[in-house]
Amino acid sequence: MNGQRLALNRRLRVSPYEARSLPGVRRVSVYNHMVLPVVYETLEEDYWHLREHVQMWDVACQVQVEIRGPDALKLVEWMTPRDVSLCEPGQCIYVTLLDEAAGIINDPIVSCLAPDRYWLSVSDSDVLLWVKGLAQSGEWRVEVFDPNVFPMSVQGPKSGDLMSRVLGDSIRELGFFRFIETQIASIPVYVARTGWSGQGGFEIYLLEASLGVELWDALAAAGKDLNVRVGSPNLIDRIETGLLSYGSDMTLENNPLEVGLDRFFEMGKTADYLAREALEHIVAVGPARKLVRVAAKGEPVGLPRTSYALKGATGQEVGFVTSMVYSPRLEHNIGFGFVPSELAEVGGELDVVTSKGSQSATIVDDNWST
Amino acid sequence: MNGQRLALNRRLRVSPYEARSLPGVRRVSVYNHMVLPVVYETLEEDYWHLREHVQMWDVACQVQVEIRGPDALKLVEWMTPRDVSLCEPGQCIYVTLLDEAAGIINDPIVSCLAPDRYWLSVSDSDVLLWVKGLAQSGEWRVEVFDPNVFPMSVQGPKSGDLMSRVLGDSIRELGFFRFIETQIASIPVYVARTGWSGQGGFEIYLLEASLGVELWDALAAAGKDLNVRVGSPNLIDRIETGLLSYGSDMTLENNPLEVGLDRFFEMGKTADYLAREALEHIVAVGPARKLVRVAAKGEPVGLPRTSYALKGATGQEVGFVTSMVYSPRLEHNIGFGFVPSELAEVGGELDVVTSKGSQSATIVDDNWST
Repeated sequence: MNGQRLALNRRLRVSPYEARSLPGVRRVSVYNHMVLPVVYETLEEDYWHLREHVQMWDVACQVQVEIRGPDALKLVEWMTPRDVSLCEPGQCIYVTLLDEAAGIINDPIVSCLAPDRYWLSVSDSDVLLWVKGLAQSGEWRVEVFDPNVFPMSVQGPKSGDLMSRVLGDSIRELGFFRFIETQIASIPVYVARTGWSGQGGFEIYLLEASLGVELWDALAAAGKDLNVRVGSPNLIDRIETGLLSYGSDMTLENNPLEVGLDRFFEMGKTADYLAREALEHIVAVGPARKLVRVAAKGEPVGLPRTSYALKGATGQEVGFVTSMVYSPRLEHNIGFGFVPSELAEVGGELDVVTSKGSQSATIVDDNWST
Repeated sequence: MNGQRLALNRRLRVSPYEARSLPGVRRVSVYNHMVLPVVYETLEEDYWHLREHVQMWDVACQVQVEIRGPDALKLVEWMTPRDVSLCEPGQCIYVTLLDEAAGIINDPIVSCLAPDRYWLSVSDSDVLLWVKGLAQSGEWRVEVFDPNVFPMSVQGPKSGDLMSRVLGDSIRELGFFRFIETQIASIPVYVARTGWSGQGGFEIYLLEASLGVELWDALAAAGKDLNVRVGSPNLIDRIETGLLSYGSDMTLENNPLEVGLDRFFEMGKTADYLAREALEHIVAVGPARKLVRVAAKGEPVGLPRTSYALKGATGQEVGFVTSMVYSPRLEHNIGFGFVPSELAEVGGELDVVTSKGSQSATIVDDNWST
């Protein structure tokens, strides 16, 4: 039940790169009310190409929420347990936005443009509405709006080569999670050393939608002999890399400890935040369940529509898989799944139940081994 | 550039009716992070069938936001200029949710389940996050959550016949925008006299997702000789009926006066609301632009990806079309478009510029005539 044809209309906002990213695409998704390409050749071909060469991705759906004004930092701090005051202009940090129960609203990358100006590059939920709503909750001196900025991504081992051709060799020195304001082919952009792959790369934030195709073509021309091609966030690569997808591997029903995103912050930051009480309670008692990495030998299985059941030693259902895919490199299925915390030990044996039957699975470490 | 194939994953939430609504569907959209079928045979065949018979629609994507607690009414009132205190248990009202600048956040149907309990049946934006954010803005004694309720719709002239077979003849007496709690085939549901078509019908709110297929099959069996079939919100019918689509015909950039939704409320309600000052200002000075109905003779044109330009008498661009489709019944193109208020007179002559060139168009009244 995959592959229904998508009708495009005005409600699905247009990416400035559509004229280049939609022709030839095999599968798309919809993300933040925009079309997100997800497969071009096949998942596997896209994966190998991404690992060997360089790809250009239309990720305009990673929409930005701008928070600007004297209380901008205070409001960003209010939304997350991470200490955002450490983020200086030109720096990005990955945060979880939490509600009053420490449920995850979204997991954006925050870019500090100035001490009173932040962009939240959001995953798939209307963070603009959350921040606008929250902004009513005090005398915050802020403006909150969509700045109409459209990211594209350049990912893969040759991404430094490609970017240096349009920006000079100095771009190779840009630090991880740092960004600069610059121009590519005279087009004003921000360039960040970020991206949703494990292969390294850059994200380019286009400020003027009408120049999307021009930007795209400039990069494509510069990278011709690098075997650059259109690509997209790749399911195999992102699971191998341990990147969680909001809406799939975590939702508002989850807290950061459950899904292991507490590794990105330390409890006890100075600034106050909405989830403090709830989160401190969860830290004190420990999370009831945890998202673990699961490896399953045997026949390749596809991504679950919703989940695959995980069964324990005695055959009882103990949890479920949120994402799973066959890794042609590791030569087995890999994925994420929730299990009770007491079962979340590396080496733990489970069964994963797919449409192909029951396959034995093992809880593995961050290198996908026991 | 239509018809890209959609990849389904866990991030696109499952409708309880998918097993019945996805097989055979020709075009889908994504709406509130769920799949929304939009075409089965062709737009025109679906349209004629809807006008003559009865259809079952998977509109589970019309997700509900529940607001419950002693201050539930006060919070709903805070979000809209419409007087919600007039809405009694068992009644629904259509409202616009406005931000502090009177921009439209969403246009849900509000159902009053009890004086301290409301459902907002929302169009395509994460109203849950808006309400949760706003709920932090005072000492509101409310809970705000997704109650996991899944609407399906029964629309068309024979919808009363179909519903009376599963609920008895009394269901024909249910008033417009009224609802009851009942059971269909022993499945607990709410049934409302509502629906996003001009042909009349009902919406059924399923409370238990696992019973979706059972509910669907019970209705399908009961309506076999009524020529019931799977259908969907139909573009031709909804434009003919004058139903606006959030995200297409209005966005956060618009206020209710611009798009004519002020006909659903009177200014000056007693309860306080967030947009009061901004909205009173707009009423005082008048909106700068208005959404009008436009009819264009000539060749059939399709729905615009984003918009079609509207040109005035001297050839200058004065506005744009947000939605347009060919009506096989009216035998011309019909749509909505924004023009400056001073040009928004019925009878006004414009040109609409599509990929097929320029066609003369007329601003028409609510009956699509001048």
